[in-house]
Amino acid sequence: MSTSPIRIPEEDIVLLIRNPHVSGSLGHLLSVIGDEGGLIGNIETQFIGRENSVRAIALSVYDQDHLERIQETIKEQTEAEVLEVKDLVFERHEGGKIHSGRTHELERVDDLRYIYTPGVARVCRAIQEQPDLARRYTSIGNSVGIFTNGTRVLGLGDIGPLASMPVMEGKAVLYDRFVGLSATPILVDTKDPEEFIQTVEKVAPSFGGIHLEDISSPECYHIEDELNRRLSQPVMHDDQHGTATVLLAAVLSALRETGRSDDPSLVCAQIGLGAAGFGIARLLLDYGFQVIGSDPQPDSQQRLIDYGGTVVELAEAMQTADVVVATTGVVGLIKPAMIRPGQIVFAISNPVSEIIPEEAIQAGASFAADGKSVNNALAFPGLFKAALAVQSTEISSTMKIAAAKAISALADQGEVVPSVFHPDVHEDVIQAVLKLFE
Amino acid sequence: MSTSPIRIPEEDIVLLIRNPHVSGSLGHLLSVIGDEGGLIGNIETQFIGRENSVRAIALSVYDQDHLERIQETIKEQTEAEVLEVKDLVFERHEGGKIHSGRTHELERVDDLRYIYTPGVARVCRAIQEQPDLARRYTSIGNSVGIFTNGTRVLGLGDIGPLASMPVMEGKAVLYDRFVGLSATPILVDTKDPEEFIQTVEKVAPSFGGIHLEDISSPECYHIEDELNRRLSQPVMHDDQHGTATVLLAAVLSALRETGRSDDPSLVCAQIGLGAAGFGIARLLLDYGFQVIGSDPQPDSQQRLIDYGGTVVELAEAMQTADVVVATTGVVGLIKPAMIRPGQIVFAISNPVSEIIPEEAIQAGASFAADGKSVNNALAFPGLFKAALAVQSTEISSTMKIAAAKAISALADQGEVVPSVFHPDVHEDVIQAVLKLFE
Repeated sequence: MSTSPIRIPEEDIVLLIRNPHVSGSLGHLLSVIGDEGGLIGNIETQFIGRENSVRAIALSVYDQDHLERIQETIKEQTEAEVLEVKDLVFERHEGGKIHSGRTHELERVDDLRYIYTPGVARVCRAIQEQPDLARRYTSIGNSVGIFTNGTRVLGLGDIGPLASMPVMEGKAVLYDRFVGLSATPILVDTKDPEEFIQTVEKVAPSFGGIHLEDISSPECYHIEDELNRRLSQPVMHDDQHGTATVLLAAVLSALRETGRSDDPSLVCAQIGLGAAGFGIARLLLDYGFQVIGSDPQPDSQQRLIDYGGTVVELAEAMQTADVVVATTGVVGLIKPAMIRPGQIVFAISNPVSEIIPEEAIQAGASFAADGKSVNNALAFPGLFKAALAVQSTEISSTMKIAAAKAISALADQGEVVPSVFHPDVHEDVIQAVLKLFE
Repeated sequence: MSTSPIRIPEEDIVLLIRNPHVSGSLGHLLSVIGDEGGLIGNIETQFIGRENSVRAIALSVYDQDHLERIQETIKEQTEAEVLEVKDLVFERHEGGKIHSGRTHELERVDDLRYIYTPGVARVCRAIQEQPDLARRYTSIGNSVGIFTNGTRVLGLGDIGPLASMPVMEGKAVLYDRFVGLSATPILVDTKDPEEFIQTVEKVAPSFGGIHLEDISSPECYHIEDELNRRLSQPVMHDDQHGTATVLLAAVLSALRETGRSDDPSLVCAQIGLGAAGFGIARLLLDYGFQVIGSDPQPDSQQRLIDYGGTVVELAEAMQTADVVVATTGVVGLIKPAMIRPGQIVFAISNPVSEIIPEEAIQAGASFAADGKSVNNALAFPGLFKAALAVQSTEISSTMKIAAAKAISALADQGEVVPSVFHPDVHEDVIQAVLKLFE
């Protein structure tokens, strides 16, 4: 296995293909697609006739050129005909992924009297006299605003607020699906941190929780700190703390898997101190581990030192650490020779990591995983749901640690975290956090 | 009939009452409630036993004192027992009236690939390259942000942003129910117009349309003008223009009812030049009518003059006008003696108007109506839906006039506007506006 950059098929396509209905023809077609590098997914037979069958074949490809090459090869080497090409990702985005609408039916003039004028005036007056009632009689107590300026979106960088909307809608879908929170993306059109803070502050009364997303580092730290200071609502920058919570869960699972305890002598190396890396380093420190960190940026180094960590060179980090966490985005940064025998390695940069888990294991790591195992959708929905339920003014390290333990506890043997669709995981996170407030 | 202030029962209560199951006992109970001034609504029998029946009796009362008096009288004068008192308005507000959630089910890991990472990155990139695609692949193209600072809410005045939330949620419910738009209340915590404008501008990319609501006058004019100037989205202050559109519809209906044409020689008097009044005066002018107006405030007077209207005293307005529209909030301002025979009178202040319609008719008006007939929920949903459909950068007078004609066309004989639940009204408004863009 090589450490050279690896591409992963990222485009999910469905080809509607008509194929002669003779034995062997489907196998031949799939082989041809496979030889060209297409990864086959679900196959759905839509029609079987006397001479032909029509099937919807899901397919992952690298990009549009790759798709075209596959289509050409099908034409040249098979009897099959591609009838239609559907892009599943764009199809699922058509019209957007979220909608803000009514929670109760509205069919009669009477309904209007109750939810609109004149009845609504009494509810307004009640809230004016006793602002706490807004939690009960409006959606605010069950809502999260997802704020971004689009300066650091996924691996795409600074694509601006508008282009980041699909990610924000995705987060809102997860809030709704996993914990029933009402989440609204708010795109903030400014790169100036002070302007961003002011804008969020002005509209903050609209929401019970303030979720910050995909904001570039180092601005994200000041923005989060300042909003936490100014607002009574819980504020959390998910790229830091959601990721950190799930990573901590993964570390706890890996320690359990490798038969080690989570005692304070454990040394964790955080390679890369951007938003995610610094968030992880902080939570590992708050948990009680020793944390050494490495990053080329002096201000990132200083930030770790200020928080109680130690800065070292990459080589020293690899030689010293029991647990290595890498979030650098540099493919192949960690060479097999650097791995210390028995080390636990999380190289979680997406889409391709600093070292492939199999390589790390071959090089002597006792446990290794990549970014696919660290999905922060395991953490943020339950954290905010619980924070809103108890009217917490913050999402503290204690809350994140409780969430991490709950997540880790549900991991199957050999896995570090459960699926985000695990039937209990979000409720367990909520309950673990609520328990802190009893 | 008197012109003294009149109170209208505004609280909708349901009494769960156990009553002896003998003939006449229900009638007696209802008479007792009626004698005490309670207005009976629906009656639902929940249980009939050998000796007793239990019924849920809907009841409108003035206030809590009134409700208590009714309960005492029931105790003293009947055999019935009140088991429970439910407040229908507060019950319907429990947990809020809106929710932002997913438009498609999310059940499998595959779904996540399409709507979240990694698939979502391709949609982000596509929008980055071609921003117009945000309309198609996000919810923005079908969304409205409802912005308020709560400085002028219903008849309640300046109750602040938080206490105004129930009204904003009510508006969002109507958008969803009537035209399927996704509407989100945004509470803006500032009374400073410039700060308000800046805040809306910064978060405007999140929404396809900008609905301004319940903002005090005169600040509302500058805020709307400036946002219209700065933003590419359509911006509309509903208190001005939604009301104006429906009022124009009502005027057109009244002209039809009284056999008059809508020719430019028609003189309309606008009594009261606050946000609603000035909005109405402007639209009547834009329609082509002559408009005279009266208001004690010099700056309100000047605003009408600048827009092409004429300022007169109340007495002169009443003597001159063919159509009188009053939005002053001053109960009984218009005395029967002021009515000019044949005049059309809309005294639309809520909850009690400047002159009761019956009084105006008795005094010689050819047509009279109060605020109950002017529900701006007839206009704003369709106006915004159409504006978003054609990517209009504004909601122009031409669009409002087209909407007003469509609304008026659906009014039953003797009525000035149809019900907001009329099966065609919102679609007709949309189609009338779309036709302008063909």
